[in-house]
Amino acid sequence: MSAPDTVTAGLIVIGDEILSGRTKDVNIGTIADFCTELGIALTEVRVVSDVHEDIVDAVNALRARYTYVFTTGGIGPTHDDITADAIASAFGVALPINPEARAMLEARWATTNTEATEARLRMARIPEGADLIVNAVSAAPGFRIGNVHVMAGVPKIMQAMLESIAPTLEGGRRMLSVTIACRVGEGAIGGPLGRLQAEYPDVKMGSYPQMGTGAVHTELVLRSPDPDRLAVAADAVRAMVSEAHRAAGLPAADEPY
Amino acid sequence: MSAPDTVTAGLIVIGDEILSGRTKDVNIGTIADFCTELGIALTEVRVVSDVHEDIVDAVNALRARYTYVFTTGGIGPTHDDITADAIASAFGVALPINPEARAMLEARWATTNTEATEARLRMARIPEGADLIVNAVSAAPGFRIGNVHVMAGVPKIMQAMLESIAPTLEGGRRMLSVTIACRVGEGAIGGPLGRLQAEYPDVKMGSYPQMGTGAVHTELVLRSPDPDRLAVAADAVRAMVSEAHRAAGLPAADEPY
Repeated sequence: MSAPDTVTAGLIVIGDEILSGRTKDVNIGTIADFCTELGIALTEVRVVSDVHEDIVDAVNALRARYTYVFTTGGIGPTHDDITADAIASAFGVALPINPEARAMLEARWATTNTEATEARLRMARIPEGADLIVNAVSAAPGFRIGNVHVMAGVPKIMQAMLESIAPTLEGGRRMLSVTIACRVGEGAIGGPLGRLQAEYPDVKMGSYPQMGTGAVHTELVLRSPDPDRLAVAADAVRAMVSEAHRAAGLPAADEPY
Repeated sequence: MSAPDTVTAGLIVIGDEILSGRTKDVNIGTIADFCTELGIALTEVRVVSDVHEDIVDAVNALRARYTYVFTTGGIGPTHDDITADAIASAFGVALPINPEARAMLEARWATTNTEATEARLRMARIPEGADLIVNAVSAAPGFRIGNVHVMAGVPKIMQAMLESIAPTLEGGRRMLSVTIACRVGEGAIGGPLGRLQAEYPDVKMGSYPQMGTGAVHTELVLRSPDPDRLAVAADAVRAMVSEAHRAAGLPAADEPY
């Protein structure tokens, strides 16, 4: 079976600590890279606070809209870890102690002589019908229900969970990209670039000014799943950049500098 | 006039490059810190792609919901910079060349012998009725229309724009916080902490496990705009942590370790 053309994803980052600035999120970038690698188009991210209704609303909005939804944060043992509750509400299912999750946690606790407190047992509450997302770093599992993948907020654990779910995700056509360096500013090539974009609507063209490098420098990034169309469009953009360089007395686009 | 109790904000980060992972966002953290500093509760963040309707929908959803909305990205000179167009659509106003913005840009271009190309003039298109957000780093202005503040995506320019709008924003009561270090894991204090949270519903209590430090370590963060309530709740949490430390043969909560 060939890969579907468009596989999309939405991400929900859950946690007051991100919105207050106390913790600087790094999971968005990690999951963006992960999706790109698998040919999944991450299309929207929402950061929401630890408020039940806000999480429920975001989950229901995004799971209806995208192939996959990922969430990070709020699955620990304390009272402010309410993601499992919110997911159960969003799906209208119960949130019992999951025997498999409990057994995994208890096996870990046995090795460290840790007591099964009420707080720790919160981590074994899994929405009915969900599959566990096991990971090597933490004994506390994430879970998948429907198209929603619920993961930890701690980056090291989240990454282990991503690795664990990767084989279960179906990627789309992998997006390919070509980056063309441009030594003149965006203002000098914006007009011609816009006309090339109109000429190649199936090749996404982005323009990214690089600041703080001293020299004027713009990176033009072309993206398409089709290598042939990408190559043709890249040739056209390189010719345009070379023309702009010549006008400014600079070497052609493909010469190193 | 005393500060209002609750001033809220929503943030919209605009750009395919964030969603593809090519650029790692740092503006969310900067704006989160900025809001906390001013007593503004950043309540929701959305990252959306360079798609007109998606930007319009996010702007209209968030501007109805929060005191302030901030946007970053998509105000440069190239075809993929469509934020001004989307904001004009969201507000149902025209997007003419703004004479003041044009004059600012032309003054800068004159010093660098830069031509006023069609692409560069895109940066002077400002929705009708908007005020300019001038900044020291770039001649291209952001703008404010209604409660929506439109800023650049390049962090250095975005930060200069934040500084420029800070005096125009009314902050709420500044949120105060106390951090209590805890040498036992979240599982050991989650139950009692949840009961203290129920006892002090007006003081937000968060629990943040610190990984990779070797020793078990949980940071408990208490937040409230009321210094007296915060102090009382912090005393109660310290007593609870000391009790948990004692049970584990560790020093009391307020002793250094």
